[in-house]
Amino acid sequence: MAEPVFPRLTVVGFGLIGGSVARAAKAYGLAGHVTAADNSPAVRTRVRELDVVDAVADSLAEAVAEADAVVLSVPVGESGPVVQAMAPFLKPGVVVSDVGSVKAAVIAAVTPHLPDHASFVPAHPVAGTEFSGPDAGFAELFADRWCILTPYERSTEAGVAAMGRLWQGFGARVETMAPRHHDLVLAITSHVPHLIAYNIVGTAAHLEEVTQSEVMKFSAGGFRDFTRIAASDPTMWRDIFLNNKDAVLEMLGRFSEDLSSLQRMVRFGDGDGLFELFTRTRAIRTGIIAEGQETAAPDFGRRKG
Amino acid sequence: MAEPVFPRLTVVGFGLIGGSVARAAKAYGLAGHVTAADNSPAVRTRVRELDVVDAVADSLAEAVAEADAVVLSVPVGESGPVVQAMAPFLKPGVVVSDVGSVKAAVIAAVTPHLPDHASFVPAHPVAGTEFSGPDAGFAELFADRWCILTPYERSTEAGVAAMGRLWQGFGARVETMAPRHHDLVLAITSHVPHLIAYNIVGTAAHLEEVTQSEVMKFSAGGFRDFTRIAASDPTMWRDIFLNNKDAVLEMLGRFSEDLSSLQRMVRFGDGDGLFELFTRTRAIRTGIIAEGQETAAPDFGRRKG
Repeated sequence: MAEPVFPRLTVVGFGLIGGSVARAAKAYGLAGHVTAADNSPAVRTRVRELDVVDAVADSLAEAVAEADAVVLSVPVGESGPVVQAMAPFLKPGVVVSDVGSVKAAVIAAVTPHLPDHASFVPAHPVAGTEFSGPDAGFAELFADRWCILTPYERSTEAGVAAMGRLWQGFGARVETMAPRHHDLVLAITSHVPHLIAYNIVGTAAHLEEVTQSEVMKFSAGGFRDFTRIAASDPTMWRDIFLNNKDAVLEMLGRFSEDLSSLQRMVRFGDGDGLFELFTRTRAIRTGIIAEGQETAAPDFGRRKG
Repeated sequence: MAEPVFPRLTVVGFGLIGGSVARAAKAYGLAGHVTAADNSPAVRTRVRELDVVDAVADSLAEAVAEADAVVLSVPVGESGPVVQAMAPFLKPGVVVSDVGSVKAAVIAAVTPHLPDHASFVPAHPVAGTEFSGPDAGFAELFADRWCILTPYERSTEAGVAAMGRLWQGFGARVETMAPRHHDLVLAITSHVPHLIAYNIVGTAAHLEEVTQSEVMKFSAGGFRDFTRIAASDPTMWRDIFLNNKDAVLEMLGRFSEDLSSLQRMVRFGDGDGLFELFTRTRAIRTGIIAEGQETAAPDFGRRKG
């Protein structure tokens, strides 16, 4: 067990990420006491049944009153309202953090409501599965994944250091980045891929010539992998696109430009151009495997066992 | 062991699919004798070392002379030339088949070279991994996957029945479809998803604001899954796009239309529209899992063990 980073930690929002943060904090001994809060009574009941935290609070006031650190794990559109609601009850010196996939918009929403005596350390663990809800989390979710901290003028040095230790304790690799740069990097590595996956799954559902049953039966050829991405939490993703609009639109513009050029290659039968692109893209995957962000095991075959 | 479907089976082209067909035919006893052919001397040497077939032929003549069935497992652009080259040596009554991802173009390329005494049963196993080469195949690749047969006027009834038994023996589920319908179904379930994956990986490699190293480090957010698709064999995929141009362009047109509408929702902050689409796409994945073409296990988290 590690030395606890915080005597008392509160997780607000017990979905996939919040539930994994709470489980990891307990499993690795990184908080002396873990409190969970969630605005859904059904989720609170389920968290009590799961018995993975020390306390489940029925109000935000109760949840944060004694907390040394509060991790917001709510859809990014709710970060501002939640901090506004909890602000009167926050303990002096508390470190507030979040796990949102968008940083500039969250900072803009949270800062006006943050008491002077609180530090806000925006964070984004780049990890997840396509599942959501209180049962979806697990302590090992963040192992060998990156967690990006985007400190700004309301982040105390001590708060940034403590959050860094917490995430390292979860097994994550910690990187620091400017909020706007984070939003641009994530637009291309995560937000636009999700948008495209949602889009093609939507297209496939509305064809006259091909039935939905055929789409499902023959999905092993590539489509299946898009559906996994397109099965992610709808509220979370709606909020991401609403809150990272500029970077998403910029990256989507690049994507569409490149797709037009690729479409032209197909139309005019430019085999050399296609071959050249398809060879270059293979090299990127080799780099990702070398980075430890993926294994080399073939996945299309879905080998058993 | 099953009753052999063919006394002597020849596989031409020993890549991922051909190598899996040969291994499965041996493993499940579906051919009395399996011969492998490949136009690369290095591949032939490797197949001899692997010791997974009964014979490795150094010429097409030698490979097919005694064969009761020949399965072409070459890039779809080579099917015509290979059948032309082997035609003089084919045994009367032989069943020729293939494994190509495109059917109408292969039928058009093969038919003029097919001897009158031969039957051609076009086939497409919807299975694969992102790996290629003689070591990539495995006997279980086709288990619970679909194999689509697209018989036409040069497919004998006996040939279609035998090929159906062969693929069922590999553990595949067999479906019959008209060649052009197959090409349309696969355009949306496989070809366009691959084109899009290749495209976004290409886009990500050429940004000024985000470095290639950042793209690789933070790929766990969704991009990573596209790179797996975009690491597939470049020659095979070039040939697919050159040979299924019309269906791919039609489906790509639909995709781009839908993407423009989605882009508009992001630009104008239409949260309800985004939420509605993201909820609908989730249901399609449930259907794919129900079809047995995917497991419900979360994959984004890449759980160890």
